[in-house]
Amino acid sequence: MYQVTFTFENQDPVVVTAAPDASLLEVARNANVAIDAPCSGNGSCGKCRVKLIAGELDSPRTGHISEEEYADGWRLSCGSKILSDVTVLVPDIASAYQSRMKTADLSSGEEIATFERLQQAIQDAGVAFRNDFVTQTVTMDAPTLDDTMPDNERLTWAIQAQMGVETVELPYFVMKKLAAVLRAADFSVQVVGERKGDHLKVYDVTAEDAPVCAMAVDIGTTTVAAVLVDLFTGKLLAKASSGNGQIRYGADVINRIVEQGKAGGVKRLQDAVVKETLRPILAGLCASAKIKASRIFRVCVASNTTMNHLLLGVDAAPVRMEPYIPSFFHVHGLKAADIGLAVNPSADLRIAPNIGSYVGGDITAGTFATLLWNKEEFSLFVDLGTNGEIVFGNQDFMMSCACSAGPAFEGGDISCGMRATDGAIEAVTIDVDTMEPAYKIVGDEGQQPVGLCGSGIIDLISELFRCGIINAKGLFVREGSRVAHDHHGTGRYILATPAESATGREIALTEVDIDSFVRAKGAIYSAIDTLLSSLDMDASVLEHVYVAGGIGSGINMKNAINIGMFPAVELEKYEYVGNSSLAGAYAMVLSDDANEKVEDIARNMTYVELSTHVGYMDNFVAACFLPHTDAARFPDSVQER
Amino acid sequence: MYQVTFTFENQDPVVVTAAPDASLLEVARNANVAIDAPCSGNGSCGKCRVKLIAGELDSPRTGHISEEEYADGWRLSCGSKILSDVTVLVPDIASAYQSRMKTADLSSGEEIATFERLQQAIQDAGVAFRNDFVTQTVTMDAPTLDDTMPDNERLTWAIQAQMGVETVELPYFVMKKLAAVLRAADFSVQVVGERKGDHLKVYDVTAEDAPVCAMAVDIGTTTVAAVLVDLFTGKLLAKASSGNGQIRYGADVINRIVEQGKAGGVKRLQDAVVKETLRPILAGLCASAKIKASRIFRVCVASNTTMNHLLLGVDAAPVRMEPYIPSFFHVHGLKAADIGLAVNPSADLRIAPNIGSYVGGDITAGTFATLLWNKEEFSLFVDLGTNGEIVFGNQDFMMSCACSAGPAFEGGDISCGMRATDGAIEAVTIDVDTMEPAYKIVGDEGQQPVGLCGSGIIDLISELFRCGIINAKGLFVREGSRVAHDHHGTGRYILATPAESATGREIALTEVDIDSFVRAKGAIYSAIDTLLSSLDMDASVLEHVYVAGGIGSGINMKNAINIGMFPAVELEKYEYVGNSSLAGAYAMVLSDDANEKVEDIARNMTYVELSTHVGYMDNFVAACFLPHTDAARFPDSVQER
Repeated sequence: MYQVTFTFENQDPVVVTAAPDASLLEVARNANVAIDAPCSGNGSCGKCRVKLIAGELDSPRTGHISEEEYADGWRLSCGSKILSDVTVLVPDIASAYQSRMKTADLSSGEEIATFERLQQAIQDAGVAFRNDFVTQTVTMDAPTLDDTMPDNERLTWAIQAQMGVETVELPYFVMKKLAAVLRAADFSVQVVGERKGDHLKVYDVTAEDAPVCAMAVDIGTTTVAAVLVDLFTGKLLAKASSGNGQIRYGADVINRIVEQGKAGGVKRLQDAVVKETLRPILAGLCASAKIKASRIFRVCVASNTTMNHLLLGVDAAPVRMEPYIPSFFHVHGLKAADIGLAVNPSADLRIAPNIGSYVGGDITAGTFATLLWNKEEFSLFVDLGTNGEIVFGNQDFMMSCACSAGPAFEGGDISCGMRATDGAIEAVTIDVDTMEPAYKIVGDEGQQPVGLCGSGIIDLISELFRCGIINAKGLFVREGSRVAHDHHGTGRYILATPAESATGREIALTEVDIDSFVRAKGAIYSAIDTLLSSLDMDASVLEHVYVAGGIGSGINMKNAINIGMFPAVELEKYEYVGNSSLAGAYAMVLSDDANEKVEDIARNMTYVELSTHVGYMDNFVAACFLPHTDAARFPDSVQER
Repeated sequence: MYQVTFTFENQDPVVVTAAPDASLLEVARNANVAIDAPCSGNGSCGKCRVKLIAGELDSPRTGHISEEEYADGWRLSCGSKILSDVTVLVPDIASAYQSRMKTADLSSGEEIATFERLQQAIQDAGVAFRNDFVTQTVTMDAPTLDDTMPDNERLTWAIQAQMGVETVELPYFVMKKLAAVLRAADFSVQVVGERKGDHLKVYDVTAEDAPVCAMAVDIGTTTVAAVLVDLFTGKLLAKASSGNGQIRYGADVINRIVEQGKAGGVKRLQDAVVKETLRPILAGLCASAKIKASRIFRVCVASNTTMNHLLLGVDAAPVRMEPYIPSFFHVHGLKAADIGLAVNPSADLRIAPNIGSYVGGDITAGTFATLLWNKEEFSLFVDLGTNGEIVFGNQDFMMSCACSAGPAFEGGDISCGMRATDGAIEAVTIDVDTMEPAYKIVGDEGQQPVGLCGSGIIDLISELFRCGIINAKGLFVREGSRVAHDHHGTGRYILATPAESATGREIALTEVDIDSFVRAKGAIYSAIDTLLSSLDMDASVLEHVYVAGGIGSGINMKNAINIGMFPAVELEKYEYVGNSSLAGAYAMVLSDDANEKVEDIARNMTYVELSTHVGYMDNFVAACFLPHTDAARFPDSVQER
């Protein structure tokens, strides 16, 4: 056995033993060392680079590592076999994983404004933000030798009299602590319950008064975002987000399903999201709002079909094997405690319902939040995640489909891609004559660029095309100081030289990156196209286009249309709705009306399976150009040189 | 630290370390070595004797150990401090604990006949032995690319169509295994559920068909008895019983409450009954009936108030502290899994309701089983356990009270007492002239006597009194070869000499034993007396007297009246009802009608607290004679010499 030492820039080393020839990435995973590996270790993404400090690895150089970098010790951990005791440096800023762990949901004023605008619109549409939770201080006489009623009956009678209900149901954990709580509180306690007609289902009985809260969570394949809310007022008490801890098992749902199919995998993937992701988020929310986790009385999760299967520890293997059958669309009667979330033991766990193997609760919750279901006119809803999902319809009908866009919109599959966090270039313009870039960077003034986030990539490709630097196939066709080619002849645009970047590494967009992104935007556009044409419609029917996803509020819709990602409809019809999944989950956790409406949406939405849909493949191929093989669809998309 | 070695006649030694001066009994308890200590280690019962083989104990001789025995190494473990490495022998047959561990419930044909007679009478009285459990094989089409309904929805629809229900509720654990079960069963599964109107609450879905069972349990302070039944037919599939593993924490409920009040005590006492007692019983039942524990879909427990608090891990301390308040009389909504019983995860746990601090679910269940609540004429129900409980009433009203009889009826507090198992003398006659005894022994022919069980003690005292060997105060007043006195002058009757007994120790009843028993019978009689006289009634109103408890079917009612234990009513009015608590629990687990009736009985029964009742103490003192200070109450009780 060899000794493997993982060192870091900002944390203590981790030392483990490993068998000869073991994969460095596997060893890191087993040691819970976070190394980004969105392609799940098949060598294609190039993100898992580490720097060899001492010892020997069998690790051939790939296209992801330059000769200079290789000489400097950089290796891909997925392709590295351990040949001796080794010490490696896991880079901090260079690893997108660390960035992914600090995500942007509701962290900016713009995101919060978007969120609050949606909630207001939902209420304006007549959805009552009410639930059956009640809380009251209930006071009893202390027992005496002449009044020997037991604690349970004493409390029950007092609740009946003071809260005006006929029947009362106490949970077991309350029964266990009842004697102590009543006596600690001198027989005056706070009761929290859910009232249905004349029945009170008690959730908790406590000696002290405290807030009554709920948690809404969006579990994305890549990132997880959550809010803590007051169940009575709906006030946002705290917000938190992080990367999905499952990411070390692969960037997309297919890789995750493969991993969970291995021995012990269901438990391992569930642990990765519950223990490693939700528990820290929960702790952060509680610390931030200064409440105990036991004050969270309901949890709602919106997530894609695979994510909610893995969250519940339900085998997702059949989802990816013909005929692609999930275990459930709707699932009820769950407790948060069932999956090991240490909130109040009585807390229910609401799961936003799925409607297909690849259209999940994040989309039903998001569709609810857009109010698409409440309008006479036709709307399109596009959620740009690791998977892209499309919903089209109005108050009378809804259809949806999913396409595999890959992680490009969140900066994955792109050599210098990253999420919209500090250091991300989120907007770019290029001078058509000098080809010099100007850009806007997320973060404080003086922040140097680290990489490109989704909105920045759209801008950059759009500008490269407008300036005639790349052609419709995404190949470089102009020369200049910002354009370079490697020894294979692959062109790239240098957005920041090593001297200009925060990392000391060049920030550039290559033809390979452009190709990845064009495939992603082509998948989205052709999915929209296929859905509309299946109804003999086209984009001209659209009155609203809602765009959601982690791509960020900075998305430039004009540029997105210019590159043929979205249909060419009037810009004012576009609306960025941010994390619509979280917005829907927030409404669902607070409002029983909203919850029912989301269930209705799921029942009434038709799922179109694109992979078996005649014509989709042709549409996709046609969309993998800038802006499209049928340029007439994008009359405003022009090349100025 | 010293090394303590516990050796046994029939099992491997247990070796532990102990601090100097540690109590040998405490060391044994911590090592899970079973030593009987009904008095919880205060030196009064003399049952915890062990034989010192090597080493040194600080252990003064008490009245429980003769000088010869002391010289031979016998010590009381509760009074022994460890002064060196020691080796002790824990006796097998001499320890009543081992006997208590093999109890007699439903082990004899007579007990089973009694049980079945009660169940028949309950059904004859119009209680429907029905529940809402249903089971059916449900068959689905396997999914295809053209039929991609998820597993949950597929099963739900099939249940709706094939079982004729509108709504279906699946538990989480079924959701987790659903994909595997449906595929293992080729989409034809057994569904077990509870049907309420148009709603089916699914309990389990399995690939194979298997029986649908329930478990009924009587948890006594001393012994635990259980039956496994078929939920549809009511057939007894298996029966099992054992001592209550809590017994090492004291013989009566007061000692148990004291023990559970110590740090970690609630968990320790719960573990003693759940892990050490119910789990082996459950395993035995399942092995005997050849079913998996997951086929048990409902559990019902009848037990006294302290026992059901300790079972649920609910602090019982307030029960014994003024003003004596239990946590609950009724408790609902429990799952068997809540207390760690590994039956089906969906299985509910029904707890027979309590009606007072010292009248618990065993009495409400037992009262139900006697049908006292269903008769116009007045009945008395007496349950002879470690506590004695009395119920009086008819279809219009019921009253109850409890008295502390101590463990005398089960052989505790009596030097040669034991339960009605192999070797127990269960019936005795004495020749009035020769004073020679004749007795009947439980067990195979040729079985030598080990001790006296409750019915044997009643017979013996009645016979000693009839033959004028003892007087009304229980003191020896005749001389003869069977009568002896120790050096304090304390008389005893020698039932078996060392040569005649199975243990090589004399079997005798001493004046101290007689005094203990007379106090126990006095407590019972005076409780009956107090209850009746509080209504200005006397025993002449009684049409039925139901006697229940572990005292055994061999109880001679005539002798029990002769010694003034029961009121002098016609013998044919007496009926031995065996373990009425278990009989009631059996009905409750099978029949929703029975369950409701027991809840009604608990709500309608009045509890009389004897300890604060004016006149009870006088009645008790008056009853502590043979047969009573007011001999006119027992006209048939005569002394023939």
